[in-house]
Amino acid sequence: MKIDKLVGERFKERPADCVIDSHALMVRGGYMKYVGNGIFSQYPILKRISKKIENIIREEMDRIDGQEVLFPVVMPASLWEESGRYESVGSELLRFTDRNGSKMILGMTHEEAAVHLVREYGLSYTRYPFMIYQIQTKFRDEARPRGGMIRVREFTMKDAYSFHTSQEDLEQYYDVCYKAYERIFARAGVPEVISVASDSGMMGGNLSHEYMLLTPVGEDSIAICDSCDYRANMEAAESITENAPVAERETLTKVATPHQETIEDVCKFLNAETIKSVKAVVYQLNRTDEYVIIFIRGDLDVNETKLTNHLGEDVHPAVIDLESGIVAGYIGPVDLDAKDGTIVLFDKSLMGADNMVCGANDAGYHFTGLSMERDCPEAVYIDLAKITEGGVCPKCGKKSIHISRGIEVGNIFQLGTKYTKSMNMQYIDENGEKHYPIMGCYGIGVGRLAASVCEAKHDEYGPIWPITIAPFTVHLCCIRSDDPEAKKTADDLYAALQAKGIEVLYDDRDVRPGVMFSDADLIGAPIRITVSPRNMKEGVAEMATRDKRFSEKVALDSVLETTMRWICTLTEEIESVADAIK
Amino acid sequence: MKIDKLVGERFKERPADCVIDSHALMVRGGYMKYVGNGIFSQYPILKRISKKIENIIREEMDRIDGQEVLFPVVMPASLWEESGRYESVGSELLRFTDRNGSKMILGMTHEEAAVHLVREYGLSYTRYPFMIYQIQTKFRDEARPRGGMIRVREFTMKDAYSFHTSQEDLEQYYDVCYKAYERIFARAGVPEVISVASDSGMMGGNLSHEYMLLTPVGEDSIAICDSCDYRANMEAAESITENAPVAERETLTKVATPHQETIEDVCKFLNAETIKSVKAVVYQLNRTDEYVIIFIRGDLDVNETKLTNHLGEDVHPAVIDLESGIVAGYIGPVDLDAKDGTIVLFDKSLMGADNMVCGANDAGYHFTGLSMERDCPEAVYIDLAKITEGGVCPKCGKKSIHISRGIEVGNIFQLGTKYTKSMNMQYIDENGEKHYPIMGCYGIGVGRLAASVCEAKHDEYGPIWPITIAPFTVHLCCIRSDDPEAKKTADDLYAALQAKGIEVLYDDRDVRPGVMFSDADLIGAPIRITVSPRNMKEGVAEMATRDKRFSEKVALDSVLETTMRWICTLTEEIESVADAIK
Repeated sequence: MKIDKLVGERFKERPADCVIDSHALMVRGGYMKYVGNGIFSQYPILKRISKKIENIIREEMDRIDGQEVLFPVVMPASLWEESGRYESVGSELLRFTDRNGSKMILGMTHEEAAVHLVREYGLSYTRYPFMIYQIQTKFRDEARPRGGMIRVREFTMKDAYSFHTSQEDLEQYYDVCYKAYERIFARAGVPEVISVASDSGMMGGNLSHEYMLLTPVGEDSIAICDSCDYRANMEAAESITENAPVAERETLTKVATPHQETIEDVCKFLNAETIKSVKAVVYQLNRTDEYVIIFIRGDLDVNETKLTNHLGEDVHPAVIDLESGIVAGYIGPVDLDAKDGTIVLFDKSLMGADNMVCGANDAGYHFTGLSMERDCPEAVYIDLAKITEGGVCPKCGKKSIHISRGIEVGNIFQLGTKYTKSMNMQYIDENGEKHYPIMGCYGIGVGRLAASVCEAKHDEYGPIWPITIAPFTVHLCCIRSDDPEAKKTADDLYAALQAKGIEVLYDDRDVRPGVMFSDADLIGAPIRITVSPRNMKEGVAEMATRDKRFSEKVALDSVLETTMRWICTLTEEIESVADAIK
Repeated sequence: MKIDKLVGERFKERPADCVIDSHALMVRGGYMKYVGNGIFSQYPILKRISKKIENIIREEMDRIDGQEVLFPVVMPASLWEESGRYESVGSELLRFTDRNGSKMILGMTHEEAAVHLVREYGLSYTRYPFMIYQIQTKFRDEARPRGGMIRVREFTMKDAYSFHTSQEDLEQYYDVCYKAYERIFARAGVPEVISVASDSGMMGGNLSHEYMLLTPVGEDSIAICDSCDYRANMEAAESITENAPVAERETLTKVATPHQETIEDVCKFLNAETIKSVKAVVYQLNRTDEYVIIFIRGDLDVNETKLTNHLGEDVHPAVIDLESGIVAGYIGPVDLDAKDGTIVLFDKSLMGADNMVCGANDAGYHFTGLSMERDCPEAVYIDLAKITEGGVCPKCGKKSIHISRGIEVGNIFQLGTKYTKSMNMQYIDENGEKHYPIMGCYGIGVGRLAASVCEAKHDEYGPIWPITIAPFTVHLCCIRSDDPEAKKTADDLYAALQAKGIEVLYDDRDVRPGVMFSDADLIGAPIRITVSPRNMKEGVAEMATRDKRFSEKVALDSVLETTMRWICTLTEEIESVADAIK
């Protein structure tokens, strides 16, 4: 294809509304166009990348015996009522009514549709295990879309669903899928994607992993152990704390702490470390507005995912009113007189803590010398804290946790029987007995993966696309296309490359070399070939890879052969990493 | 793939709710499953067919320089407000609000999105012409989905949009696309699809064609001339009528016609032919409920498409109230005293008619001897009638029109500047002057094409898929898989066929041959190979094509070679038809 026929606009300037590099480069390069909040159209360049990613995914899903199906984008609400998610999922599920007033939803995930599709097929145990997948448009009404294709409302996703007759069988297949995902990311040119233990959230089920591309612009925080192989999304990472034993338990003493309402201020005022204080964090249930008070050690923060998982429902930060019985700024576990219905929780970090500072539930007063065991004998401790940088690894026990940022590019879940039970899908075993099949589900966002690869592989001039997903393999520039000899050489090369089935973008515009090269950088084809009158005199063309590892002048009659060789080299580098995954 | 691993249920009985054969067979064969009104999930068999159809479409679109893009399914209403269609399109456009209360729509077509995507790219005349297309999910909130995949609410469609700087250039490209469509249908195995002139309806624009597969179960009526090449959707076909001259004009005479309220009754009562009568048909505007009275010759019917095109707005059959001034059953063009705002139209069939019977606008009375020229001198005649079987061909003038039924499997439109003007897309020409680009658009429904092929190519046992879109190429049956020799032969053949890259469905279940064959018929692979102990004794396998044209016993060591030869033959039969289209 000739570049002046490629639909899409390229810009020099970084758009003001683009926070992350991949977004800025993909807008500047004519990959996508904003249509509405979190909604984009894709220009041909991005569509080419997406199709290549989809094909890699398709090949790897077929390789592990997946069968491609298609579920609807628009589904009747009744299907989601069967699983209970029509009620339980928040406003990210887009609900509407059709012309007949029937309640409908836009699919953001398809567990219900998958169970619906195979409920009859899966009646006999002989059919198991099986896996179905689709690559289809999803809509998730995100409150805060961001980062271009990183967090959008409408997106193309591969979602797969497997069905099993035993937990062992699911686990075996889960491992197979785990490896297939590693192969997918390797083949897309980002073998550095890591898997981390994750929280299952609204999906239900037990075990799950997320695949993360580590990058400072990622919106997920990941706890990684430097001493062992522990890696978990911070949402799911267990927080382990110790409280050093004290020589002597102090007496519980009420002290005046006028105008000291934050735990930092109080500790400073009383000359105590924050680690020796009890902080109260207050939420309200979304459902009833009842208060939830969490007591946690002063140096730690509440992990809201753990909290909502424990409660089984969503919460929001509290607005404390006069009838609450709560004295904001002075809340403590002793003499607390909150109104009926208030839920009080204790984080594990307080277990066995002595000589602590805490609020006295009396405006202007705190206690010192709090002993949890002595003064709160009925407290039950649960893990509600965020793991911290330098914290204790839940696996090896060393203080070797560090926190990194990452973009979630895929996830795999062991769902158990949440959907088969609620939607009454059963199979009959060898003995004629009925059981609920056990499910797994496996997602990858196509557009987000494209943007993540761009985020991981770019320089200041543009993306450096891995050859396996690049929109074009070769970018051919003819400098001074008004020079008949240069033009003919470039034209011939264009024809020869195309005849070999190579995807070439050919730039024979009458523009300055600088414009040509900056456009080439924005499009990011892995191999660039430049024909110019100056090089013609030497009988050569300039060849270079976008990643700058290879750059040489090549005799004109060797350009085609060198291109073929480079394509093989670049492709094999990527595929060999994938092939090494067993 | 082994058939017992193929996800999808097959049934013996025709489902009661399936009216047309393709629907019944595709449900019985495990192609699709009903999710909601006009909404289906696709099992792997149908998804395989869809992917092959999509690939044919993609290849043909790329061949005519189309560039694949992706538009969103969900779009902000503001985009459709720009073109005016947010208001003008009826309730088939699904409108809803998102979590922030923003008005959104589900895309049923993407003219607005296409203009939005290329508005900046298309600023210079040097970029023209260009064509972009997508293959994407659409939602159209049909009042009456029917026929399985024939008329659904959610569907996968290829929609293409071309942009031009002159009407000549559009027409040239329109012809190119016309041929590409013929190639697509030929390659999908239905070269019998015909193009017919169509009405542009809500798309706007001038010239358009529909591609129709003729079948008695089609929901469109098509006027076809037996004498020339005239073919048009009945909605768009001009109605040509003649009124034989009379020897003498009768006098307008009011006669009592008690209780004769239909035109048939009146004619019978007065001993007149219906062709000598004037019928009044009454509608109301959807917008204002104002009345629209159409006078038309008694033997003809009103074509509502022509009517709404003439009015520029939608209508519904009238409910005539007392204030209307209309005397139901006795309406006529003379002495009509309808209330202000009533629109009165005359069909061309009444032009020059004499000695007619018509209502006298007085309950129980009609006129005889009406002369249109003499008694309604101010009437303006327009074409509002449906063309009839045996009617006059608008092209060759012979009375050789017959009416057939058809399914619309594709359409192409010359849109003109409707969208570029309303959405203010302009380009700058060589002289620095601004113009609105001229657009064409081109659609094909993927699922509807699959179902239409099934409707055109099936027998009572199942679909007969053309090899180019068949879910599997070969159906391999091993009868008596408990026989080690037969099983090994079939297994080896399965491996050998797969090694050649042939898509084989392998049935080695322990079931009766009848079950195997009826399943094979429902899946409809073009080539069936049967291995059985009985055949083994003769050293042969039975080979047959699904369409029964070929059937022979083939020596076991020739089965692979024969299969390859048959595949070539079947493929070439189809491709040669496509290649002959110039």
